[in-house]
Amino acid sequence: MANEKIPYKIYLEENELPKEWYNVRADMKKKPAPLLNPATGEPCTAEELSHVFCDELVAQELNETDRFIAIPQEIMDFYKMFRPSPLVRAYFLEKKLGTPAKIYYKFEGNNTSGSHKLNSAIAQAYYAKKQGLKGVTTETGAGQWGTALSMACSYFGLDCKVYMVKVSYEQKPFRREVMRTYGASVTPSPSTTTEVGRKILAEFPDTNGSLGCAISEAVEAATTQEGYRYVLGSVLAQVLLHQSIIGMESKIAMDKYGIKPDIIIGCAGGGSNLGGLISPFMGEKLRGEADYHFIAVEPASCPSLTRGTYAYDFCDTGKVCPLQKMYTLGSGFMPSPNHAGGLRYHGMSSILSELYDQGLMEARSVEQTAVFEAAEMFARVEGILPAPESSHAIRAAIDEALKCKETGEEKTILFGLTGTGYFDMYAYGAFNDGKMSDYIPTDEEIQKSLADLPKIG
Amino acid sequence: MANEKIPYKIYLEENELPKEWYNVRADMKKKPAPLLNPATGEPCTAEELSHVFCDELVAQELNETDRFIAIPQEIMDFYKMFRPSPLVRAYFLEKKLGTPAKIYYKFEGNNTSGSHKLNSAIAQAYYAKKQGLKGVTTETGAGQWGTALSMACSYFGLDCKVYMVKVSYEQKPFRREVMRTYGASVTPSPSTTTEVGRKILAEFPDTNGSLGCAISEAVEAATTQEGYRYVLGSVLAQVLLHQSIIGMESKIAMDKYGIKPDIIIGCAGGGSNLGGLISPFMGEKLRGEADYHFIAVEPASCPSLTRGTYAYDFCDTGKVCPLQKMYTLGSGFMPSPNHAGGLRYHGMSSILSELYDQGLMEARSVEQTAVFEAAEMFARVEGILPAPESSHAIRAAIDEALKCKETGEEKTILFGLTGTGYFDMYAYGAFNDGKMSDYIPTDEEIQKSLADLPKIG
Repeated sequence: MANEKIPYKIYLEENELPKEWYNVRADMKKKPAPLLNPATGEPCTAEELSHVFCDELVAQELNETDRFIAIPQEIMDFYKMFRPSPLVRAYFLEKKLGTPAKIYYKFEGNNTSGSHKLNSAIAQAYYAKKQGLKGVTTETGAGQWGTALSMACSYFGLDCKVYMVKVSYEQKPFRREVMRTYGASVTPSPSTTTEVGRKILAEFPDTNGSLGCAISEAVEAATTQEGYRYVLGSVLAQVLLHQSIIGMESKIAMDKYGIKPDIIIGCAGGGSNLGGLISPFMGEKLRGEADYHFIAVEPASCPSLTRGTYAYDFCDTGKVCPLQKMYTLGSGFMPSPNHAGGLRYHGMSSILSELYDQGLMEARSVEQTAVFEAAEMFARVEGILPAPESSHAIRAAIDEALKCKETGEEKTILFGLTGTGYFDMYAYGAFNDGKMSDYIPTDEEIQKSLADLPKIG
Repeated sequence: MANEKIPYKIYLEENELPKEWYNVRADMKKKPAPLLNPATGEPCTAEELSHVFCDELVAQELNETDRFIAIPQEIMDFYKMFRPSPLVRAYFLEKKLGTPAKIYYKFEGNNTSGSHKLNSAIAQAYYAKKQGLKGVTTETGAGQWGTALSMACSYFGLDCKVYMVKVSYEQKPFRREVMRTYGASVTPSPSTTTEVGRKILAEFPDTNGSLGCAISEAVEAATTQEGYRYVLGSVLAQVLLHQSIIGMESKIAMDKYGIKPDIIIGCAGGGSNLGGLISPFMGEKLRGEADYHFIAVEPASCPSLTRGTYAYDFCDTGKVCPLQKMYTLGSGFMPSPNHAGGLRYHGMSSILSELYDQGLMEARSVEQTAVFEAAEMFARVEGILPAPESSHAIRAAIDEALKCKETGEEKTILFGLTGTGYFDMYAYGAFNDGKMSDYIPTDEEIQKSLADLPKIG
């Protein structure tokens, strides 16, 4: 079917859907560094990790050798609710830009969680259910991950306890209500329900909360209650594995129509979307079968790849999780409150960090106002109101397409459109009112938070 | 391809999409009563209507004879952004209910306006642009229509002035920001920008506004500015014509797989979705080629079909629009403020009113709490958080499926899922908190507002 007219949207048929996740670590000659136990400085064992995570997910986390992992039928069934996601040819955007580039985007926002997060949430909920657990705990900031997990837990009849950063809990009541509609309990963090929460509240009674604190509460809630485990929506290798469904579908759809992307772009916070999108393409590059130009796009206000250090660091501000080797700004780094979108994580997936360190992809940072300008243009011509996170990728795609306009090159660009911005209208309102500002941390600020790196590795 | 395995979601290919709208009036032996000029009591002429509406839309409004009207290529191009919408087999809902019924829904919410309203908005914007107008004006309550029109106007570079009921403007700032992101100007109504607005504010300075008042302001703004016309998102025959795309796609998809629905269900406010969904099926029924059981579902708090009167009435509270013969509760009827969803219009499309009056469809009303119970169940099993409006149809579909469970009948049910509820989380929050109440107007209340019917027809 190669080279037939490319439809505006490509939807794979049910029988064309991938039945396996792709584990890019299997094709990496130099593997990502192992997670370390912060107490001993030794690699975490499966037994140690199993106190926090479900057994099967621990196995996936530590699996560096199996190239493909079969997607269980129960997960395939759920995927059918919202997958395949469309691969869209951005004809309208190309026309608006007047570019000879051919732009495609894989749109993951057509589900109630509003983002790609559901791909991993359902997998993690499935393995928790399979293990006979009562429920899972997690943290959420902007709320995409918490929503996705609530939907997944509702489907499998699992209890779902979400610790939501207090400022988000109060400013994003709609996200909270979506989670409650799916039966999750949502607790503003810090809370009095955990020891770590009570301790923080005693010290800082007026705190707005932080992601780091919410993680610490969620981990405590999981490890101190019978039948619970903690789950996480990004950063981990298991999450990138599940998210490889994005790239797998993209590749099948492109192969079906004989399309080969030259440039593949994704926004990068913890790396779940970018890792998922590029995985199968990166696999080809690692095996020497094809070459692609990968671009990770991060906010200038939280530039872990472009301005961070590749070192072992804590995954959470509370320093209760394993140490991970990654590009990091230091676990105490807090992006400016002016930064409206997500992508606020201080570190980066260890897989992506290692690939970046090996020079296999480019990273660039973009400023907030330029991101929302791209978001507005995209919304108006392509009819989808993008999430601020996704709009980082849009910005880079537009920039690359404009370069093609200058040079006349007909490059094919693929980017990940991770979700919709319906719950981010405060940020759009600030942009509409001309009140959005850009903030770039100084070198001193970054050096200060990096000074706290653990003395390991 | 009939009788092959039914996929979870059926997406038509681009080349299978309908290229014409279907005008159900062409197959009605007894036509809907004409619009009347309130000043003269005579049928409105095209010339009279053209002061308010675009010329081509006036022609469509008055066209009772052409069965099919070609969809202009420019509109087809835009439809490709979000159409075809999926026809979904509700396997998960069927399983949850344990029903032998086969349930399908046509999901119109996968676009940024979040509803089916975009189908008509783009058509109305196109004809306004074709006529060389500068822009259009409209009113919006909940905001679905205003959002859709903003998107459509942005696409064609038209100015878009939206009068938004003041209470919604304040309580739904996110909807407002979506419209502004698409470049629309959004004015809380009543406002000081129109004579009628200033008059109402002088009399009731603390008013929260009403849809009737917003319509009056939008009509005044359109008729007193060079190069503007007024557009409306429901009730009118032209809107049902554009919305027939919903039913046409549904029918093509069902025919492709050899599926024949026994029952077709839609929620009914002004009638845009219900009319669009049932049109081609109703055409078969009118021509004696097939039979279907149609069910219009309205809120018990605003029961125009089930408890109203079939008579000429004003379309707006301000009494500036033409008179229409329809099932109505009286133009002064105000549904209880406890009623959280849309579907608050006092009357009903004249086409649907006439079909109902001829006994060609059933109407039933449902109470709010039961609607949100259905919404919650649906969200949890089908993974889509439905709009409160759409959930009226879900309620009736579940009730019909449960009847099948009792009788053992394997009926095929099709319902319209008009949109998503992401901007209705206040209502979901009230439901989650157990604070939702049902309100059914008394006979006296309805008789009181019906006492004001114009003395015509």
